[in-house]
Amino acid sequence: MPAYATNMRFKFPIVALSLEIITIILYGVFVVYDDGKSKGHGHGHAAPSNETKHVEPMTLYPMFQDVHVMIFIGFGFLMTFLKRYGFSSVGVNLLLAAFGLQWGLLMQGIWDLDDGKIKINISKMINADFSTATVLISFGAVLGKTSPVQLLIMTILEITIFAINEHLVVEILGVSDVGASMTIHAFGAYFGLAAARVLYRQGLRNGHENDGSVYHSDLFAMIGTVFLWMFWPSFNSAIAEPGIPQLTAVINTYLSLAACVLSAYAISSLVEHKGKLDMVHIQNATLAGGVAVGTCADMNIGPFGAMLIGLVAGTISTVGFKFLSPILASNLGIQDTCGVHNLHGMPGILGGLAGIVAVALGKKAGHTAAMQAAGLASSLGFGLVGGALTGLIMKLPFWGQPPDQNCFDDSLYWEVPEEEEENEESLAHADHSKNKAEA
Amino acid sequence: MPAYATNMRFKFPIVALSLEIITIILYGVFVVYDDGKSKGHGHGHAAPSNETKHVEPMTLYPMFQDVHVMIFIGFGFLMTFLKRYGFSSVGVNLLLAAFGLQWGLLMQGIWDLDDGKIKINISKMINADFSTATVLISFGAVLGKTSPVQLLIMTILEITIFAINEHLVVEILGVSDVGASMTIHAFGAYFGLAAARVLYRQGLRNGHENDGSVYHSDLFAMIGTVFLWMFWPSFNSAIAEPGIPQLTAVINTYLSLAACVLSAYAISSLVEHKGKLDMVHIQNATLAGGVAVGTCADMNIGPFGAMLIGLVAGTISTVGFKFLSPILASNLGIQDTCGVHNLHGMPGILGGLAGIVAVALGKKAGHTAAMQAAGLASSLGFGLVGGALTGLIMKLPFWGQPPDQNCFDDSLYWEVPEEEEENEESLAHADHSKNKAEA
Amino acid sequence: MPAYATNMRFKFPIVALSLEIITIILYGVFVVYDDGKSKGHGHGHAAPSNETKHVEPMTLYPMFQDVHVMIFIGFGFLMTFLKRYGFSSVGVNLLLAAFGLQWGLLMQGIWDLDDGKIKINISKMINADFSTATVLISFGAVLGKTSPVQLLIMTILEITIFAINEHLVVEILGVSDVGASMTIHAFGAYFGLAAARVLYRQGLRNGHENDGSVYHSDLFAMIGTVFLWMFWPSFNSAIAEPGIPQLTAVINTYLSLAACVLSAYAISSLVEHKGKLDMVHIQNATLAGGVAVGTCADMNIGPFGAMLIGLVAGTISTVGFKFLSPILASNLGIQDTCGVHNLHGMPGILGGLAGIVAVALGKKAGHTAAMQAAGLASSLGFGLVGGALTGLIMKLPFWGQPPDQNCFDDSLYWEVPEEEEENEESLAHADHSKNKAEA
Repeated sequence: MPAYATNMRFKFPIVALSLEIITIILYGVFVVYDDGKSKGHGHGHAAPSNETKHVEPMTLYPMFQDVHVMIFIGFGFLMTFLKRYGFSSVGVNLLLAAFGLQWGLLMQGIWDLDDGKIKINISKMINADFSTATVLISFGAVLGKTSPVQLLIMTILEITIFAINEHLVVEILGVSDVGASMTIHAFGAYFGLAAARVLYRQGLRNGHENDGSVYHSDLFAMIGTVFLWMFWPSFNSAIAEPGIPQLTAVINTYLSLAACVLSAYAISSLVEHKGKLDMVHIQNATLAGGVAVGTCADMNIGPFGAMLIGLVAGTISTVGFKFLSPILASNLGIQDTCGVHNLHGMPGILGGLAGIVAVALGKKAGHTAAMQAAGLASSLGFGLVGGALTGLIMKLPFWGQPPDQNCFDDSLYWEVPEEEEENEESLAHADHSKNKAEA
Repeated sequence: MPAYATNMRFKFPIVALSLEIITIILYGVFVVYDDGKSKGHGHGHAAPSNETKHVEPMTLYPMFQDVHVMIFIGFGFLMTFLKRYGFSSVGVNLLLAAFGLQWGLLMQGIWDLDDGKIKINISKMINADFSTATVLISFGAVLGKTSPVQLLIMTILEITIFAINEHLVVEILGVSDVGASMTIHAFGAYFGLAAARVLYRQGLRNGHENDGSVYHSDLFAMIGTVFLWMFWPSFNSAIAEPGIPQLTAVINTYLSLAACVLSAYAISSLVEHKGKLDMVHIQNATLAGGVAVGTCADMNIGPFGAMLIGLVAGTISTVGFKFLSPILASNLGIQDTCGVHNLHGMPGILGGLAGIVAVALGKKAGHTAAMQAAGLASSLGFGLVGGALTGLIMKLPFWGQPPDQNCFDDSLYWEVPEEEEENEESLAHADHSKNKAEA
Repeated sequence: MPAYATNMRFKFPIVALSLEIITIILYGVFVVYDDGKSKGHGHGHAAPSNETKHVEPMTLYPMFQDVHVMIFIGFGFLMTFLKRYGFSSVGVNLLLAAFGLQWGLLMQGIWDLDDGKIKINISKMINADFSTATVLISFGAVLGKTSPVQLLIMTILEITIFAINEHLVVEILGVSDVGASMTIHAFGAYFGLAAARVLYRQGLRNGHENDGSVYHSDLFAMIGTVFLWMFWPSFNSAIAEPGIPQLTAVINTYLSLAACVLSAYAISSLVEHKGKLDMVHIQNATLAGGVAVGTCADMNIGPFGAMLIGLVAGTISTVGFKFLSPILASNLGIQDTCGVHNLHGMPGILGGLAGIVAVALGKKAGHTAAMQAAGLASSLGFGLVGGALTGLIMKLPFWGQPPDQNCFDDSLYWEVPEEEEENEESLAHADHSKNKAEA
């Protein structure tokens, strides 16, 4: 691929502006404010309520803001761990999520028109934010190896496919997935992994010098980790039925995450050299408990049940980072930059399985284990097939994909400050010593 | 100016403590807790309600906390982009906002006494936080070129003038400005620009080596950007009428900001070398949609109307950074460190104009386009004249203004760690090589 | 102590997993969801209400999230100021708090069983988070000088002792301490100081090269400072009686903190070389107003009363950092890494004293000054004795305590990225100069 193909001038502005203008036109045609008289509020992953009811329109707003922080700070900073890719991580995260939420509101709203219109309210905004989470998860799998144009294309395709699968799973199959272990986490992870497989790079099979962290980039990533960890109870409960089910979702997520921290730290120390903790595990595996408890967050699984799920999730996630990711990369050609298979893939499947068991045990009336299993299978299938097809489209040679040697490097798509001041000073010292030496 | 004049010992403590003690005395005389029996709650930018009504006193508290985060994290970290001025950015931001909110509550409360007292409640605390935003905007224009004492003087004068203009515009002229595009953003920007003009430094006309970023300082700044971006819906809706108007303000701001991100990124890539993105644009122009939709945030402009405003705001803001700021600096002598003209000035005017159009189209009953225009003119006038006069006072030679060569450098007013550890190590390496060379 | 004793492999995983599994079993036996039919909600530091009442279960959730952010972001990043200890600060903070909240919910719930069960709800989750604050305060005193295993042991012991003292003070003595100046801040500080005294290290009496900050580590710490500062009103009001008392707690804390910023900055400038501000003071002493106003936050002390408390707290805290901490270290053998005596110890006592005066002046019905004094004495006594005993247990030679030369260094317990990229580059330059010199 010739180097100039990565020049984004024209290519990127045309794609970005075209998508935005098309979206604004569609909003002009289809989207209106919710006047409080729609056929049902709080509609989303939760079981639909058919009766017309009055809800104070701002009730969910604090929950929405928590989810908003997870999407923009949480996902954005979690990916800043790479030493030379922080601008792209937090900056492209903002770009994709800002476009994705607009597109997601349209794609999800299509299935639920009211007088031919999508009526926007806080609940729909939460779901729109949710739809972007799938893209940000997949982004983690291809991080550092894709251009902004490729990623905008992924955004529009992935959210469209997500909305189809979610409608099928939640509305048609009637699956319970309040925290979206299956429809967001497993879907997003396997979508990204399939795309990463299609975009496999032979040239990176021995790693890349920029595919690693420095001390301060690991600290920036912890900002993302901790905000995701703290607000995950809001993610899993935002669209639960108000009252006790919502409280249950908060409590289960809080406890699962707390237990997950202990197993992630313990296993990290157990598998690492001299019992040291590994920042990759701490940044990611501590969150697996939030993913895995998602499907049954609003079910009466008991506080200790939630903690057991978290304990197992933290364990398999850490083990996955240590032992499975290298195998996926070397044997299956899946180069998963952020290890989304360990944070969202396996814990998402675990969440789906836990949901099947919980429903089979009668923990949620009106649902069946078979349908829960069908929901998991559907999410995995749509993810894998959708991701592979999307990867093929992303692979087309005119989207400005970076050459191998420029992977994981902001400077291909960003103006980067010339030199760290420290370098300038040390350069000065080095020059000084050089001069002395020469003198 | 002799160098010792920048010694803050005595000068700064005396000013800071005197202001605080005077403020505490005024609070002792004038400020009491709101007992829920005042003549009207929720009083602020919004249209005043005259009847006595009962409001649960903590309803607005989550909104207040969102605004609080914008003021202290958002503005504070947004300005940490400078390589050697992070302590001042986030630290002096904290100082000015902490004093400003105390002063703002007094200055705004004076116009609304109840039995001769200011009754403090959450709504008043939100407005007090708002009043500090004007100062923090102006701070961006003079960042790196002023002493803490100068900035405390700016704080007390700017908030006083802001409270007069706000009372005139909102209460006397009856202007609608729920998100304060005019009374906060345009006012604060032109206040700061006028002050910066008066404080013009010939010595900085060719730039300054510290007036730039390093890689990690740009990431710190993104913390500020993203928190401002996420919570801006709260800023624009916090004092809207409860219910549908407040929901409308949230939705309009959310959509305007989302559209603004796309245009800011697209135009940044279009105008930069090789189509690369510029962090200055991403950090700032992505927020212009929140500023520009402020005045008509609670009006029925339609979701696509809000998105159009955002699209235009992101465009003019990015273009302003690229082409207008250099002209302002070289031709008009306005050295605008953070480019507040592009983030708050022009988008604020755009917001005022959009409000005039929206009111003319009947989008908000009880207001007139003429009065909206008067409100914009008043805010610009008070900003420019107030800023120029304040600049003259700040220019008096005994406030410890930094000499040109110490601009944009924390070490003039802060104890700064001697050396980065990296330097020490690289120094060691350099010394090592020197020794080797000498040996 | 032989170096290999710090190898955490087996030691740490066994302790962490054992504690977690025991905790899960205890949850299986004792903890159930709150079904809304318990004998009294909102039970905690606040005066208990005996009647059965119905509360919407999610009302306190936004407050809980604010407190959650203080615990995990606030405390975690506040301690990242050390140049080489950021992973441990934010990472071990997460570990201790995640385990501590599970243990705290058990230890606090034991005193308030309902049909033999602990019924978990948002109020209990807030109190569980509170219980971890004591550990995180004490962590600050021993930061950099303890192993993760030692700290897990401290967590379990300190929270157990805290729960006993809190039950004694609040329930049995009937002391009013809504913001927990005494039961959390003074207790946690003196517990940590007593432990630090027992763990005194002769080898650190002249300081340690890693016991200091670098420029960017000070900025990371400001993330912690500002989040703590902003959300402190939630900490002090979360368990206040709903309505006016809760509003009063918010207002008093907001104003005390604002006034405290001015005195902390003023005194920092007054006592430092050339009137410069010191980041240590700004990061810490600006928060002392939140600690000191805690006990009487919900009392009618008047806005100016709250501001006076903040003004005094900021002053004594800054003076403590400058003059008292060196004396404690050199004369009493108390090596207080984060200066918790200045942020939590003295301001906590000030808060207790202010509470005694306020109660004596009749600002809170149903309480007596004598009981308030007893509550302060009890908290100090339990803290000092409990901390000393815990320190003795932590001193046992098999917990992997770091040798003096490895104190304040992440690399003993963490995989740390090999080199900063800057170093690599400067190394390259140095090598280049070396080669030139040799040539």
